[in-house]
Amino acid sequence: MNMNVKRIDYFNYLHLNELLNAQFPKSSIHDEMLFIITHQVYELWFKQILFEIDAVSLLLAQDELLDTDIFKVVSGLQRIIKIQKLMIDQIKILETMTPMDFLEFRDLLGTASGFESHQFRLLEAKLGVKYEMSSPFISRLSEPHQRLIAEALSQSSLLTLIERWLSRTPFLSIDDFTFWADYQAEIQVRHEQERLKINTNEWLSPQEKLSSMQQLQSVEEHFNVLFDSTLYNELIVKGEKKLSQRATHAALLIYIYRDQPAFHLPYMLLSSLVEIDDLLSSWRYAHILMVQRMIGQRVGTGGSTGQQYLTHAMQSRKVFSDLTNLASFLIRGSQLPLPDHVKIKLGLSYVQ
Amino acid sequence: MNMNVKRIDYFNYLHLNELLNAQFPKSSIHDEMLFIITHQVYELWFKQILFEIDAVSLLLAQDELLDTDIFKVVSGLQRIIKIQKLMIDQIKILETMTPMDFLEFRDLLGTASGFESHQFRLLEAKLGVKYEMSSPFISRLSEPHQRLIAEALSQSSLLTLIERWLSRTPFLSIDDFTFWADYQAEIQVRHEQERLKINTNEWLSPQEKLSSMQQLQSVEEHFNVLFDSTLYNELIVKGEKKLSQRATHAALLIYIYRDQPAFHLPYMLLSSLVEIDDLLSSWRYAHILMVQRMIGQRVGTGGSTGQQYLTHAMQSRKVFSDLTNLASFLIRGSQLPLPDHVKIKLGLSYVQ
Amino acid sequence: MNMNVKRIDYFNYLHLNELLNAQFPKSSIHDEMLFIITHQVYELWFKQILFEIDAVSLLLAQDELLDTDIFKVVSGLQRIIKIQKLMIDQIKILETMTPMDFLEFRDLLGTASGFESHQFRLLEAKLGVKYEMSSPFISRLSEPHQRLIAEALSQSSLLTLIERWLSRTPFLSIDDFTFWADYQAEIQVRHEQERLKINTNEWLSPQEKLSSMQQLQSVEEHFNVLFDSTLYNELIVKGEKKLSQRATHAALLIYIYRDQPAFHLPYMLLSSLVEIDDLLSSWRYAHILMVQRMIGQRVGTGGSTGQQYLTHAMQSRKVFSDLTNLASFLIRGSQLPLPDHVKIKLGLSYVQ
Amino acid sequence: MNMNVKRIDYFNYLHLNELLNAQFPKSSIHDEMLFIITHQVYELWFKQILFEIDAVSLLLAQDELLDTDIFKVVSGLQRIIKIQKLMIDQIKILETMTPMDFLEFRDLLGTASGFESHQFRLLEAKLGVKYEMSSPFISRLSEPHQRLIAEALSQSSLLTLIERWLSRTPFLSIDDFTFWADYQAEIQVRHEQERLKINTNEWLSPQEKLSSMQQLQSVEEHFNVLFDSTLYNELIVKGEKKLSQRATHAALLIYIYRDQPAFHLPYMLLSSLVEIDDLLSSWRYAHILMVQRMIGQRVGTGGSTGQQYLTHAMQSRKVFSDLTNLASFLIRGSQLPLPDHVKIKLGLSYVQ
Repeated sequence: MNMNVKRIDYFNYLHLNELLNAQFPKSSIHDEMLFIITHQVYELWFKQILFEIDAVSLLLAQDELLDTDIFKVVSGLQRIIKIQKLMIDQIKILETMTPMDFLEFRDLLGTASGFESHQFRLLEAKLGVKYEMSSPFISRLSEPHQRLIAEALSQSSLLTLIERWLSRTPFLSIDDFTFWADYQAEIQVRHEQERLKINTNEWLSPQEKLSSMQQLQSVEEHFNVLFDSTLYNELIVKGEKKLSQRATHAALLIYIYRDQPAFHLPYMLLSSLVEIDDLLSSWRYAHILMVQRMIGQRVGTGGSTGQQYLTHAMQSRKVFSDLTNLASFLIRGSQLPLPDHVKIKLGLSYVQ
Repeated sequence: MNMNVKRIDYFNYLHLNELLNAQFPKSSIHDEMLFIITHQVYELWFKQILFEIDAVSLLLAQDELLDTDIFKVVSGLQRIIKIQKLMIDQIKILETMTPMDFLEFRDLLGTASGFESHQFRLLEAKLGVKYEMSSPFISRLSEPHQRLIAEALSQSSLLTLIERWLSRTPFLSIDDFTFWADYQAEIQVRHEQERLKINTNEWLSPQEKLSSMQQLQSVEEHFNVLFDSTLYNELIVKGEKKLSQRATHAALLIYIYRDQPAFHLPYMLLSSLVEIDDLLSSWRYAHILMVQRMIGQRVGTGGSTGQQYLTHAMQSRKVFSDLTNLASFLIRGSQLPLPDHVKIKLGLSYVQ
Repeated sequence: MNMNVKRIDYFNYLHLNELLNAQFPKSSIHDEMLFIITHQVYELWFKQILFEIDAVSLLLAQDELLDTDIFKVVSGLQRIIKIQKLMIDQIKILETMTPMDFLEFRDLLGTASGFESHQFRLLEAKLGVKYEMSSPFISRLSEPHQRLIAEALSQSSLLTLIERWLSRTPFLSIDDFTFWADYQAEIQVRHEQERLKINTNEWLSPQEKLSSMQQLQSVEEHFNVLFDSTLYNELIVKGEKKLSQRATHAALLIYIYRDQPAFHLPYMLLSSLVEIDDLLSSWRYAHILMVQRMIGQRVGTGGSTGQQYLTHAMQSRKVFSDLTNLASFLIRGSQLPLPDHVKIKLGLSYVQ
Repeated sequence: MNMNVKRIDYFNYLHLNELLNAQFPKSSIHDEMLFIITHQVYELWFKQILFEIDAVSLLLAQDELLDTDIFKVVSGLQRIIKIQKLMIDQIKILETMTPMDFLEFRDLLGTASGFESHQFRLLEAKLGVKYEMSSPFISRLSEPHQRLIAEALSQSSLLTLIERWLSRTPFLSIDDFTFWADYQAEIQVRHEQERLKINTNEWLSPQEKLSSMQQLQSVEEHFNVLFDSTLYNELIVKGEKKLSQRATHAALLIYIYRDQPAFHLPYMLLSSLVEIDDLLSSWRYAHILMVQRMIGQRVGTGGSTGQQYLTHAMQSRKVFSDLTNLASFLIRGSQLPLPDHVKIKLGLSYVQ
């Protein structure tokens, strides 16, 4: 309805002249156009994801986050998730190119491949993947792109920002309520009960009793890592844990009481991060399956076969694995009820 | 393995410098970037679809098509289908923008909207949508884009090429086998049997008999259109049929005997066209639902509300509706068996 | 870890014996099995959706909803949405049956068709579709199923429950803050400014001025419906509006200030309902497209063709259209800022 | 139109009475219903997939396959693919259950889990996974289900049937045309050219020459396996190859000349098998990711963590890996042109 605004043309607004004239196949093979356009689309989506990550990180870098800030962070992450899902589906389009179609122009591309996407490495770095600059994924990039990655690595990643935000939560102790002590006590009681049940169960053979006891002990050791800061920090040094012990405690608090108003958005934030991690992993996997189908099992002096790379790609480079692994420490909120005065503090203002 | 080929850089090969620097938001609103990139991606896909349609049309424009040509046509159409599916899913990403986010920068865009995509109109024209140049969808486009549309409209559309290809099929009569006479006879026998069954069914009340007879008659009239060239051509004049009668007969032949080797690919070709039509219709529908959600029911002196437009958009502009409607004329191949010598002609060479 | 629990067998737990022996094709046609199993799967999903709707309705029927209740309602609705999406995709599986495959056993089914699913009608009734018991969709069902529908129609639908919940919101006036008066004033100011802009714009021809003025007037009439209870109630009587005026005001409040903590979940609740409505509409549409492809354009004494039915099916039976249409009344929250003391009331308790 | 057929009721036809009354949650936890219904739906789909595999296997077990048989086989496999895709998407619905929701009733289920689905193991066995009856996946099943698996393992799997069908192809030599000799000669010529190119390339340093030569040699060794039956059979004994050498040659022939009419359907058949394999692998992966999220990293005396299982699950149990790996042996059909008289034999009868 704004009458004075100059008419903006759809074509010019989107700079379609540049965009639709940026496809230069190196061969006369029909399918090369698809290869180019598909990868261009991927790069446009990467740009959008980077744009969202930057906005989310800026919000998270504040010393104090308003609830409306977390609302925006969650919206940004949810958008990234939707884009990731589309990118995974997009692989189906590349697959309409049969291996032989691809072989027709592959030689002309030299080493050009999606593994050289600097935006993808940037995205990983901004999430929290700790690349060495000497990594072959980085060192092959052009100078300016390497500088971009170096800069990203030198700044606070999303992982770091989340860890800081979790660590400074005021809710680990509210007045006389200390979540962690209560949680630890509850876990110990449950394990004690379990031990008693095994010992007094006359249906179990001595062999079964032994086995059950060993299993229980292994579970207890698993929990001990959370309780014992020395053990915990050893795992951090080994790279098996990424969040500090305090941040993990805070995350567990949020997971267990996620139905309290104060934790709605924090919970959505954390689950979104886990989903982004999973989808990134699925994307790498689907991408590799596709490459395998295209060019077969690679053999070469490099010596790494696709299978090995595949396993590697999926197991490592998970950024928020600590959050994924929280599941084994969860108990039901109803088993560790919050005091009423704490509930009020975690509730909405007008309910009071 | 080609050692002499100069290394081509992924970044330069894809012209990412141009591509990733073609986003110029008009506002400082965060969500405008998503709006731009999403639409740019749509336009890249349109370019790819146009590229495939052109290749397919070139093949179909030949006087004689080899089986390997039809193979390529089907592959091209299947690829278009995969892209269309992705484009429909992509709407979910635009929907992460809530109406209010959109309203924040909408005013700045003037009239710029996806309805101004010249590539989409070009695509429709190349498929066979018969636009008037004075249509508001066309007349708003820039001069050069109008010329592109005019040129496309002046050339043979995919619809026309398919109609010609169907019309010249040699299989409507092979030696003494004349499909159409046999089909027509079979249909008449079936209707006669049906009439007899109704008349002799003592469980039916007079009212039910009458109703059944009326229904049968209506079915017979429906078939008569196929049999009677005068009736058929009237529907062509009215725009209710788009393929010639002969082409429709050929299409029916292919549908009924689609398990014969000579008809495998022709059948896949025709079903692909129906699917492209359906997906285009779904895309228009999903797009309109999304616009409705974004800007609500439009009111204006133009007077057309979204609902009316929606209905219009889906009912009209179907290009291959004649093929979709074939379903009501199908019978089982086993009810009209092919003579053995015809089967041999429709089979593979080495089987003979 | 619970050692005393008797081992439950997966096969028995899921009652797979009954489930996997409930497929009785009427013909020896291979594809009938797919037809049966696909429809059985649809009915299992319908059962799940009904189960979720009942749980959601029970929560909403309370006089007072805790925030944790709304949290559960939103989770339930989000789950329904995911199921609906899968059901739409499932149509692709039915489509692997070509029309001729279907024709092979269709005659044996008599009138049996998905339109006779009593669970689907129950679902619609529970959402808020106001069926007459004499509607052909209902009167064809068995006695006990008709009773189920009648019972559902006699109870509060989701639409009714939502309308009541919206109507009793305390936030339309907080202390001296009266949202509706402020909103109405803001809209009037904006229209006044618009009028002035048109009148003083020397670039517009008299004809263009007239046209712009008419458009503005039409927009104002559109808004007047919201402001004027007589006009509004007339639309309710005509069935064009379904929510009361007060409920609509409350919904608009929630949409505009959805980033306030107190409105996070209410906003998610309302958007989920809109999405469920949209997906139900998409499902009906995709289902009809599929039926059309299977059996072609229907002709019969009933006289209704698929096209007409299609248009009908999508335009009517939308339950939450009032919410969808809110978009045209939205303004930015920043244009109508909340007083600080209201923000505090809408915020989290501990922030105070 | 068949007037005498007794009206069949949709409800009875689908045995909905049994189906909709087969859900017996063990707890009063809301989410258990979803758990039950989701798994019941999976089992219905498994039944459908088994039904299709049986039909496909019956066709393939014939001594001589008509082209119309292969047409049906391909249709069956394509349907399985569509179902698999839906099953993967269905995981999203299970994921609406958060870990804590699941923990609420998990203890009550004892060991009941999807890993106990006998239909899934049957499906794997029928495809060609070579289970030992003592495998924990099998030995935990009930007696009758173990017998079903044993029976399936004793019969010809899809892998075996395909291998036989490939082995008896008449096209490896047609008159004087012997594909394999020509292919082998062509590969040797190409490697010779490559060697020459490396040796005469003055831009390469000695180190680079050495490295290129080593790479070439490794490629040649890779090809030698195909050429040398002793090497090949060693890999079969080790379980690294599953198809006989002759079957692999036939598959390669089909891949390279897939645009010849005689190979259209065979090619579609082989690619469908590869896709089924890939999707099964994706399903296992997505399923495991979901389980990990639900119950976290498992620790126990069993000692196997989810990560290890994950890697195992995806690397092993691929049935048609030989076909997937063909990609690395492909050359373009244009580089090894077929003699005209062979083309005619591979063509359609009427073209002759």
